[in-house]
Amino acid sequence: MSTPAVTTRPIAFSGYHQPKDRPVEELTAQVGPGTPCGEYMRRFWHPFLLSEQLSHRPKVVRVLGEDLVLYRDLSGDLGLVHKHCAHRGASLEFGIIAEHGIRCCYHGWLFANDGTILETPGEPPASPIKERFCQGAYPVIEHEGVIFTYMGPPHLKPAFPMMDAMLMPNNRMKPYLIHSPCNWQQVSENSMDPFHVAFLHTRVSGPQFSEVFAELPIIDYHETELGFFYTNARRVGEFIWIRMHDHLLPNFSQNGAIFENVSKVRYFGRPGLTRWVTPVDDHNTYVIAWRHFNDRDDPLHQGRPENNGVGKTDFYGQSGDDPYEVRQDSPGDWDAWCSLGKVTSHEREHLGTTDRGVAFLRRRIKRAIEDLQRGIEPVKPDPVPGLGIATAGGDTILRIPKGEGDDRELILKTSQAVAAAYVKTQHLPDEERRQAITDMLAPLNTADPGQINPDHGKIFEFKTVA
Amino acid sequence: MSTPAVTTRPIAFSGYHQPKDRPVEELTAQVGPGTPCGEYMRRFWHPFLLSEQLSHRPKVVRVLGEDLVLYRDLSGDLGLVHKHCAHRGASLEFGIIAEHGIRCCYHGWLFANDGTILETPGEPPASPIKERFCQGAYPVIEHEGVIFTYMGPPHLKPAFPMMDAMLMPNNRMKPYLIHSPCNWQQVSENSMDPFHVAFLHTRVSGPQFSEVFAELPIIDYHETELGFFYTNARRVGEFIWIRMHDHLLPNFSQNGAIFENVSKVRYFGRPGLTRWVTPVDDHNTYVIAWRHFNDRDDPLHQGRPENNGVGKTDFYGQSGDDPYEVRQDSPGDWDAWCSLGKVTSHEREHLGTTDRGVAFLRRRIKRAIEDLQRGIEPVKPDPVPGLGIATAGGDTILRIPKGEGDDRELILKTSQAVAAAYVKTQHLPDEERRQAITDMLAPLNTADPGQINPDHGKIFEFKTVA
Amino acid sequence: MSTPAVTTRPIAFSGYHQPKDRPVEELTAQVGPGTPCGEYMRRFWHPFLLSEQLSHRPKVVRVLGEDLVLYRDLSGDLGLVHKHCAHRGASLEFGIIAEHGIRCCYHGWLFANDGTILETPGEPPASPIKERFCQGAYPVIEHEGVIFTYMGPPHLKPAFPMMDAMLMPNNRMKPYLIHSPCNWQQVSENSMDPFHVAFLHTRVSGPQFSEVFAELPIIDYHETELGFFYTNARRVGEFIWIRMHDHLLPNFSQNGAIFENVSKVRYFGRPGLTRWVTPVDDHNTYVIAWRHFNDRDDPLHQGRPENNGVGKTDFYGQSGDDPYEVRQDSPGDWDAWCSLGKVTSHEREHLGTTDRGVAFLRRRIKRAIEDLQRGIEPVKPDPVPGLGIATAGGDTILRIPKGEGDDRELILKTSQAVAAAYVKTQHLPDEERRQAITDMLAPLNTADPGQINPDHGKIFEFKTVA
Repeated sequence: MSTPAVTTRPIAFSGYHQPKDRPVEELTAQVGPGTPCGEYMRRFWHPFLLSEQLSHRPKVVRVLGEDLVLYRDLSGDLGLVHKHCAHRGASLEFGIIAEHGIRCCYHGWLFANDGTILETPGEPPASPIKERFCQGAYPVIEHEGVIFTYMGPPHLKPAFPMMDAMLMPNNRMKPYLIHSPCNWQQVSENSMDPFHVAFLHTRVSGPQFSEVFAELPIIDYHETELGFFYTNARRVGEFIWIRMHDHLLPNFSQNGAIFENVSKVRYFGRPGLTRWVTPVDDHNTYVIAWRHFNDRDDPLHQGRPENNGVGKTDFYGQSGDDPYEVRQDSPGDWDAWCSLGKVTSHEREHLGTTDRGVAFLRRRIKRAIEDLQRGIEPVKPDPVPGLGIATAGGDTILRIPKGEGDDRELILKTSQAVAAAYVKTQHLPDEERRQAITDMLAPLNTADPGQINPDHGKIFEFKTVA
Repeated sequence: MSTPAVTTRPIAFSGYHQPKDRPVEELTAQVGPGTPCGEYMRRFWHPFLLSEQLSHRPKVVRVLGEDLVLYRDLSGDLGLVHKHCAHRGASLEFGIIAEHGIRCCYHGWLFANDGTILETPGEPPASPIKERFCQGAYPVIEHEGVIFTYMGPPHLKPAFPMMDAMLMPNNRMKPYLIHSPCNWQQVSENSMDPFHVAFLHTRVSGPQFSEVFAELPIIDYHETELGFFYTNARRVGEFIWIRMHDHLLPNFSQNGAIFENVSKVRYFGRPGLTRWVTPVDDHNTYVIAWRHFNDRDDPLHQGRPENNGVGKTDFYGQSGDDPYEVRQDSPGDWDAWCSLGKVTSHEREHLGTTDRGVAFLRRRIKRAIEDLQRGIEPVKPDPVPGLGIATAGGDTILRIPKGEGDDRELILKTSQAVAAAYVKTQHLPDEERRQAITDMLAPLNTADPGQINPDHGKIFEFKTVA
Repeated sequence: MSTPAVTTRPIAFSGYHQPKDRPVEELTAQVGPGTPCGEYMRRFWHPFLLSEQLSHRPKVVRVLGEDLVLYRDLSGDLGLVHKHCAHRGASLEFGIIAEHGIRCCYHGWLFANDGTILETPGEPPASPIKERFCQGAYPVIEHEGVIFTYMGPPHLKPAFPMMDAMLMPNNRMKPYLIHSPCNWQQVSENSMDPFHVAFLHTRVSGPQFSEVFAELPIIDYHETELGFFYTNARRVGEFIWIRMHDHLLPNFSQNGAIFENVSKVRYFGRPGLTRWVTPVDDHNTYVIAWRHFNDRDDPLHQGRPENNGVGKTDFYGQSGDDPYEVRQDSPGDWDAWCSLGKVTSHEREHLGTTDRGVAFLRRRIKRAIEDLQRGIEPVKPDPVPGLGIATAGGDTILRIPKGEGDDRELILKTSQAVAAAYVKTQHLPDEERRQAITDMLAPLNTADPGQINPDHGKIFEFKTVA
């Protein structure tokens, strides 16, 4: 018998007996047209380009496995159409941009931004050809330097996913876009996995963000109609530090501040970034996000807006630009998720209790895909005009020194109290919500909430991007 | 239901409902051995290399999907053999060229240029091994700096396709070869599509050749036993300008002069180029052509022989060498046909009346392939010795100002008279034919046929290759 | 009928009728896990890297189609594990090397060098997760600058293949590793094909090693339990020169001296190299060998140890580093075996009598694979401690001038006598064996065995690597 007996038992030097294939979870990995997950993804708006990437010439882009051409017509409107002209197939990247719409270079047909045909020169004036077909087109929204599209059924188009964090007062948003040569799930799931921070970013190769992260967090997941938020709590000296993370289905996330010193009490700090993970195709993914810069959440101005843009952001490990050896010595998020392979194999994983968040996320997405296959449309974010969609991402820090009892129990309960305060206040505008949360949480402090911890203001050495 | 309903109706922003696949017309796209179109193509001589590309060393080439090695043996004869040695498979690109034939580097076997085995050193002298097999080889003809092969059944080998234009007196022929990374049909069909000239080359991005081309032409197709010729007629002031185009099946074409000023009467001008579109494989194609340079058809000497050769010719848009942005701003033929994709999808096109020529060509080729599948060999060009194969390509210009009636009707009738004169005279040698055509067409001029139109001699700004 | 009739009869210009496909002999070409040949290869130790290629960082390697990570832990031990972490799949090339074992960068799990799990931080202390699975790992042996692994069933692990030539006294071993982008068989079979030397290396493009090789050799193959050795005999003036070659199944070989002047009598000269041909995967192969440098076999010190290493060795034609034109003019072994294609087609070969050795080797390997499929394990080398595995590779030269009879008969009989002497003495240590062989063969000399042939000491012009 030449076929090796496959086993996963822990035998020394058992490479021979380990399974060698890495089967792909196709249901959730495939995003092309007509695939179950591709259909599901086509129920949401996705960012796919930064405004700065678009010149006055047409630009080929790829989103959800479709080749498209984006352009800004002479009137200033954006058009996003299928790459190949519906007439003979020439690429509209060579199209000539018109006052309204784009004209194919080959035979001069003119398409409106919505894909309908405006002119078919050379055809008889009475020709009904314009009525018989059109160019595939998708609606586009440009917001604060980021371009979004919705590629699903026109009649099901949801509202633009305006998040409350995108409406913060006195906040500067700077977008970035970074490519990862792997499946979207690997990138997206990373944000539901708070435990990797303790290892990848801190213990394993020295602190990339903050030594505080070396402490294993106490995590509590909360499901919502739109996805999840979770509390990520740690003791830092006399403080309990609660980071709130959002993950809205399928591919949206926010976390806490990028640079957080945990040196004094904070209430309802807001996210350091507002992020989408957009599938380019099954094997390529963009992280497209706004970094937020404001005095409230980055009082020391440690963030660097100018280091955000195409291919770069201002915190460690988000791209493959560093030399391979540097990334080997101190691997970042990008290295971790890309190194899973083009598409990772769920079947070959061995999940532990620390992988709970990833498991939750997968289950929800799988259920949503299967629901859609049965005709049940997914719930979509429905932003309140002027307020946006309420999210939780950001940090709350309370001054609650260790007590007599089990400290982990104390941390967990505190984080649950914080979560409850967030949920109760989610109908309020930013400042009011902050005040309400403060009012609810301030009594939990067991010492002067304004006091600064002199020990914790200096211990952090960040690897910022120079 | 998660599968989108596919429709081609012109709905605004209906990208979701458009078909996303691009099925290939395999019958005509595939050229490899044993494919229907590959068999059909193997009934004709095809050029595949310029003489200047061959040094004293063997050269790997690829034609109709086959990997071959071309060499010039020490006696000066050319050999074209399958790449892998029939003995053990070593590539004959490492073969050592002999006085007659080529010797494999690995074990020294010597092959004649016709593929038969001359020596099998190391084998017993009486070994019958030489009688049992041979190296695949194809006949080769070198003509005026271009190397042709015939890859079909030996007993069906046609005559070398000597065109009359290749025998023009006082004419300099300069060959060029340009690669396109796409299927041969996309390149070949371009020459049966005179309408693209009005758009791609003129209206869309400014005149690449002549402003005159902006006028939509009046086209009249004529089928012949060997393929097509068509008249491409326009009014230019007091002149009617009739360009004649040849398309011989499957992949041969000639058009009018590359630089034509339409400033005086001409009779039976001859083609600016004599061109084949040779499939390298299903996804790669060579245009191999001779540009013609002579006083008769290019009296101002606007053509530049020295700008023709490997990868280049002296008129606009025939290669991808210009920067992408330049090609986006003023796309050429090469950009148009390559941008259809590796292999375009006929099924996803929407042909109009201006695509008549392309439709005619496809129908003829498809019929010829299907005939061959039923055992009916295609008609092949049969050149008359000394005269070659009669073709039509070139320009005739008559001085026929607008009359009272429908001018388009007048232009069409004039072009039909010209076509008739060409057909009636096609048994004559060049100069005699020209005289006969002149005699037949001169009476159609309604004013002094020698008069030069002062308005039309200067309006053309050509994009020549610097 | 459009399908060409396939024939292999030697018809002139019959390329059309030759088969165009090149079917692969999958049984012996495929080396991945679970393939018949892959299973067979997994019964042997294979070298896969030079020590000098491994730094203090983990290194991705590929052996027998498996992606692995090699590292030297802080205690100095080597570990070779599957690339993807058994937990979530992150690549261990980003792992952090520990005192013993390697820690995954993503969640900090620690693996021992044997693949068992030492730590699963973040999991509850009592978690049984460590007992449920492990990381695939393979045993590694490092010897004289070369790293070997055994990837088969642990309980069938054979002894390290210590060859007698690796134990020669007063010998310097210098390893080299060279990549070939083709299937392992093409590289491995080359050493069972002594006839190519007369052509590839000598006659075809001038002497690469020695003019003496232009003489067609008299070859006699001997099968052994472990594979083959063969005698490769030539007359050189008054000498009969017998080169001995080893080929142990599946992929081990040794030949004679790299630089041999055939100027005096020698007994039991030893191999110039000790070589494995390791499949990286189906289409990539490493030659990994030690070159031997000693006064006995290279008395003129023509070898250059410093020219051996990663990608290079000190004799001609073993890599693709020379310019293409240089390799066309004087192709080497590397050019020959690579030019057969990614995987050559046995079905399209036409073997002659000179291909006997290749045919023998294929038959044995095929039989061994089929035996293993039926559960019969292959015979594996069983080195005698201190002596290693007895091999034959090297040169013996006897002074036996031409006699009255058939010289080829004389050469063959002499080489058979030499072979018999080698076989009879193979239980002896190096020096004793040499003496015994000398005692047995010296009487065959018909003139003073110590006499130097003044004619043969100077005729050789070697192409050494500069």
